[in-house]
Amino acid sequence: MKGLIGVLGGMGPAATVDLFNKFVTYTIANKDQEHIPLIISSIPDIPDRTEALLNHGVSPLPLMTNYLKKLEDAGAECIVIPCNTAHFWFDELKNTCHVDMLSIVETTMQEVLLTKKKNIGLLATNATMYMGLYQKSIEQKKLNCITPDEESQKLVMKSIYLLKSGNKDAAEEIMKSQAELLFSRGAEVIILGCTEVPVILANEVKKHPNKYIDSTGSLVRASIHWYENRVGKSHLIITENLK
Amino acid sequence: MKGLIGVLGGMGPAATVDLFNKFVTYTIANKDQEHIPLIISSIPDIPDRTEALLNHGVSPLPLMTNYLKKLEDAGAECIVIPCNTAHFWFDELKNTCHVDMLSIVETTMQEVLLTKKKNIGLLATNATMYMGLYQKSIEQKKLNCITPDEESQKLVMKSIYLLKSGNKDAAEEIMKSQAELLFSRGAEVIILGCTEVPVILANEVKKHPNKYIDSTGSLVRASIHWYENRVGKSHLIITENLK
Repeated sequence: MKGLIGVLGGMGPAATVDLFNKFVTYTIANKDQEHIPLIISSIPDIPDRTEALLNHGVSPLPLMTNYLKKLEDAGAECIVIPCNTAHFWFDELKNTCHVDMLSIVETTMQEVLLTKKKNIGLLATNATMYMGLYQKSIEQKKLNCITPDEESQKLVMKSIYLLKSGNKDAAEEIMKSQAELLFSRGAEVIILGCTEVPVILANEVKKHPNKYIDSTGSLVRASIHWYENRVGKSHLIITENLK
Repeated sequence: MKGLIGVLGGMGPAATVDLFNKFVTYTIANKDQEHIPLIISSIPDIPDRTEALLNHGVSPLPLMTNYLKKLEDAGAECIVIPCNTAHFWFDELKNTCHVDMLSIVETTMQEVLLTKKKNIGLLATNATMYMGLYQKSIEQKKLNCITPDEESQKLVMKSIYLLKSGNKDAAEEIMKSQAELLFSRGAEVIILGCTEVPVILANEVKKHPNKYIDSTGSLVRASIHWYENRVGKSHLIITENLK
């Protein structure tokens, strides 16, 4: 299938649903057949990424490699991973992969640069923070990265795990306060640098699309561009105003 | 992967997102790893099912068979298809398939019988209506099937294709009136017998869950039961009140 995009998902499942939904809603299509072809692995037994990186937990790399191979075998020509923390292993996965891969950190940073803002807030997992997945790129561009303090970061993690356990309302209440704190400390725009966060803050992002960079959204927009280039169809355009 | 469920989707993509979302929200899970493992094909170039059945269009069967095989090759142990009209070819697909398959028509009818209602409304595509996918089962059970009249059925189809082209609000307005008409003609409960319809009427179903049988929801609930039996985990239960 020309242009088939493989999604290495399940990290977590709700974030993978969010990515899939954005593929459907960001594509202008008049009928089923004009939508982007996707093959989605949502096999969630991949070990917790933050646990692996910060608490000597089991490495998720072997299962990620295994499921990535399944997607390749099914004919995927490009692979995306809707989990920021998993991008710690991006280069290793790319080395084993025989098709294109798009990095969510790169697609998100491209959208950050388009905003021309200088003070960039960041909501992400402890591991994404600790590994500096975003901070390094932000600082390389001479921008200022504003991250939650230690107590706030604990609440960010609490909110993420609340969503993973199905409690969206409680997750939203906590995460909203953490976003407000970053704005009060001078953030002009906030990177939602964990794919659970755009699910948690969906109402906020809808109300104030220009205040957030949704990492999942950026990955979907970049994937649609990849598909357009691959199949040469120019009628597939992006409907979001975050450009 | 023990218990891996394959989803033969893309018919249409929004309905497949809806199914995936229901898998995540109907499963009680405290962490990613407790969710149901899924491999989802959303390759939407499968020819239109209604066109094939009513207007001598290209048959969707060869591509459905092909994508079903991909899911089997990826390790799926049970296959589900979130498209009612596609179930016209269910037996042919089952004959080529080496693993379990659950029929959306059967899972929906099981939930219809649980309601103990006698007057069953039906919202579905022209082809599902014409082929009698639901009417036959309903009449076998000595129940009364109430379907839209010819003019109303045209509006049902218009609403379904509006959703497929991304216009949910217009689709909702039309479909809501058609549901009201069926209730005014004596329907006690309405089968949403096309997987686009629960997406279109999502707000209505949320308000009045006992007035509708959501075919997608029934397929997800049956799939979760299948998974529980397969892996022997009893903590996976169903949160919906439609039981």
